[in-house]
Amino acid sequence: MADKKVLTVDNINPHIRDMEYAVRGRLAIRAEEIRDELAQGRKFPFNTVVSCNIGNPQQLNQKPITFFRQVASLCENPDLLTADKEPIVSQLYPKDAIDRARQILKDIGAGIGAYSHSQGVPALRKAVASFIAERDGHPADPNSIYLTQGASAGVQNILSILTENEKTGILIPIPQYPLYSATLTLLGATPVPYYLDEDSGWSLDVEEIRKTVHEARSKGTDVRALVIINPGNPTGQCLDAQNMQDILTFCHTERLVLLADEVYQTNIYEPEQRPFVSFKKALKEHPERDAIELVSFHSISKGMIGECGRRGGYFECCNLDSGVMAQLYKMASVSLCPNVSGQIMTALMVTPPKQGEPSYALYQNEMTGLYESLRRRSKKLEAVFNDMEGVTCQPAMGSMYLFPRIRLPPKAIAKAAELKVLPDAFYADQMLEATGVCVVPGSGFAQKEGTWHFRSTFLPPEELFDDFCGNLRKFHADFMATYN
Amino acid sequence: MADKKVLTVDNINPHIRDMEYAVRGRLAIRAEEIRDELAQGRKFPFNTVVSCNIGNPQQLNQKPITFFRQVASLCENPDLLTADKEPIVSQLYPKDAIDRARQILKDIGAGIGAYSHSQGVPALRKAVASFIAERDGHPADPNSIYLTQGASAGVQNILSILTENEKTGILIPIPQYPLYSATLTLLGATPVPYYLDEDSGWSLDVEEIRKTVHEARSKGTDVRALVIINPGNPTGQCLDAQNMQDILTFCHTERLVLLADEVYQTNIYEPEQRPFVSFKKALKEHPERDAIELVSFHSISKGMIGECGRRGGYFECCNLDSGVMAQLYKMASVSLCPNVSGQIMTALMVTPPKQGEPSYALYQNEMTGLYESLRRRSKKLEAVFNDMEGVTCQPAMGSMYLFPRIRLPPKAIAKAAELKVLPDAFYADQMLEATGVCVVPGSGFAQKEGTWHFRSTFLPPEELFDDFCGNLRKFHADFMATYN
Repeated sequence: MADKKVLTVDNINPHIRDMEYAVRGRLAIRAEEIRDELAQGRKFPFNTVVSCNIGNPQQLNQKPITFFRQVASLCENPDLLTADKEPIVSQLYPKDAIDRARQILKDIGAGIGAYSHSQGVPALRKAVASFIAERDGHPADPNSIYLTQGASAGVQNILSILTENEKTGILIPIPQYPLYSATLTLLGATPVPYYLDEDSGWSLDVEEIRKTVHEARSKGTDVRALVIINPGNPTGQCLDAQNMQDILTFCHTERLVLLADEVYQTNIYEPEQRPFVSFKKALKEHPERDAIELVSFHSISKGMIGECGRRGGYFECCNLDSGVMAQLYKMASVSLCPNVSGQIMTALMVTPPKQGEPSYALYQNEMTGLYESLRRRSKKLEAVFNDMEGVTCQPAMGSMYLFPRIRLPPKAIAKAAELKVLPDAFYADQMLEATGVCVVPGSGFAQKEGTWHFRSTFLPPEELFDDFCGNLRKFHADFMATYN
Repeated sequence: MADKKVLTVDNINPHIRDMEYAVRGRLAIRAEEIRDELAQGRKFPFNTVVSCNIGNPQQLNQKPITFFRQVASLCENPDLLTADKEPIVSQLYPKDAIDRARQILKDIGAGIGAYSHSQGVPALRKAVASFIAERDGHPADPNSIYLTQGASAGVQNILSILTENEKTGILIPIPQYPLYSATLTLLGATPVPYYLDEDSGWSLDVEEIRKTVHEARSKGTDVRALVIINPGNPTGQCLDAQNMQDILTFCHTERLVLLADEVYQTNIYEPEQRPFVSFKKALKEHPERDAIELVSFHSISKGMIGECGRRGGYFECCNLDSGVMAQLYKMASVSLCPNVSGQIMTALMVTPPKQGEPSYALYQNEMTGLYESLRRRSKKLEAVFNDMEGVTCQPAMGSMYLFPRIRLPPKAIAKAAELKVLPDAFYADQMLEATGVCVVPGSGFAQKEGTWHFRSTFLPPEELFDDFCGNLRKFHADFMATYN
């Protein structure tokens, strides 16, 4: 008999054991199995697995932005930038891509193979600061910006430094992207959930949050930060400017650090009624602009750029204590630096080709094409969901997701109980087995008790979108027929 | 007056406050300041800052391996791989680089812009498994391999899952690369230091470690893992095969998971007397090959490749409990995936051009040239240190560092006390201000009480190496003259 292992599930870090992350959880693992089995020739009622569980546009064939990749490609291979190669290279690359790559390599100094400054290459942070200043009409300081390996890594670092002990409470929305709950579990901090109101388009009521804060504090929780995901994930709502001012006032009076997850800031589908306003801009227009502590996050994984695999992003700190900033730096330095390719892509995202430059027209075409297509797909899927029996879906104002509510028949709920899974997980399981479409059950994000939802991206390619919608319709009708 | 901040150094995560990481600490920050001041025209007794505090070869002008960068560049820009571009592209890229890029993109499926499998792209893990099998003569399982954002990220994850509570003890060498102590501080686990013996070439005495384990356990520490850095960092020693068998037996009898940091496995400077043997190979030749739990780490940042900025590496798990492996997967999935460019470079490192392929000769030339140069520089710097008054330096069998011992005059120790810094930090401060050379004081790695050291890389470019050595000699002579 084999010895008992030194390390077992019973004696590992209990926080890891307790952590849940449904976006790549049981259902996603099953989807991978099916994908493998399909490849091996096993028959399913579908030919392909469609991963709508995660906002991963290029996995669903979204093309990368040409200019960004051209510059990235040249930065990888500086041999192409020598004068003697220019006659050939200029047949493959537009002049502005060549110039940009040269400038970036000059700014970096040591190329992309060297560890950079732990906070990110200074010149690339400067590019991010200029972008923020232009976006908001208020200055930004490159020394307050950290380039990160995607927004997730930044969120993890900030939640970690915020966690003094197990009484530390962080307000997180329900429903929420489970990075927040998983990280707080890992850190042993206390998530303090506040509820978004589905019926009013997942709106955020400051007075409701205040009650939550007071209640948690009365129980001894040291509530010290508020997480806002805007545009919402999984909910897709977008905050209006007045609401944001109220939130800032609330953070000031209740002494909360505001963490603004703004990774979907360009995924805005009702730009006239509900444009994106950054919390940095809102802060600068608030009377307590020099007091309220804000950290805002952005990423290259979302928007139209969708460079998820590269792991790049940034966070900007406003009004943080200088001693805390020094501790943040020390923390970043242990991991040496964010990957430099991701840093370059972050800088490119915020400094695209300008009018008059050779790549401008193509860039504009690509961006507009992607944006219009995403917007069409969001509206189409929203209509499909709202047309289904027992399903309601709030409009997608932003992000890459819809989060429809499903009213499941009692027979379906009983069947789920019999299988020892939650009703929404049962529904999503059935959907996967019937259609190959992988979504995430609402329970993975938490939801108001007694309600059931699922999150789906609307990223399947437009030419396949009608089929995709048709399959979902048919599945739902069959499911309801079986269990009604 | 401004309000008191919500988040202050007094109420942040105390583990972050307590964490120390000298490799990018106070001295490195000062070096950056001097670099900025030099750029602004301020005068120093030198013209350039030489960063010997960190193994960052390309920052010191080491050229990247051409074939690896060619493939990386093509993967970034798949437009170059279309048939119509071939006549032009083939003037810039050898055929094997083009073929390899096509194969990698085919293996990945969605390109480098999509999140991959959380463990890393299956085909790229398979390449790593083949490399391990060939290196060791024993098979490796791609499903036991995790691609990571550099070895550091892998070490952090493994130490995290090992930490059940504050009684969890992890054996770490003294001196040690401070990633280990910093991460254990962050996790709130208990570092259990064991000492390497300087006089016998930083050798590792199993019976000494056993005493350390028993003593720690008698005090209630749950010692459960042993960290070995081989080749050593900062010490440069390389273990012999018999010693490794003894270590494995020790791990088995004492019930310890073995963590083998093998990132310097190709930085071996006495390959005949002391070749590198992996712990995976040693394990497979040990009677308890199916019992002893081993995790071994590798990286693209070191060796001759030196692609630090890209953040890539892997770890391989042997004999871990399957439930623990599932928890590891969940943990990796919260961070979505390691950056795909780093994954590609990891696979390239382990599958270089083969004999008969167009890029083989250049690849061999570059690798051999870098290796021979590193070896020459290691021996030269070792001789310089051993020639200095009051300095002894063990030979560099491996890694990128020397760790000389300095016997400081009492007047220097008194001066340090007056300035409230440790004597070795004082010495390193003086070196930086006099020569522009930034090293890390031995206290950053811990050292036997009453001894003082510093760690220096031998990475300055060969054409500048004699000047570099001359500057160090002169500084040391002046320092000794001042304080003797």
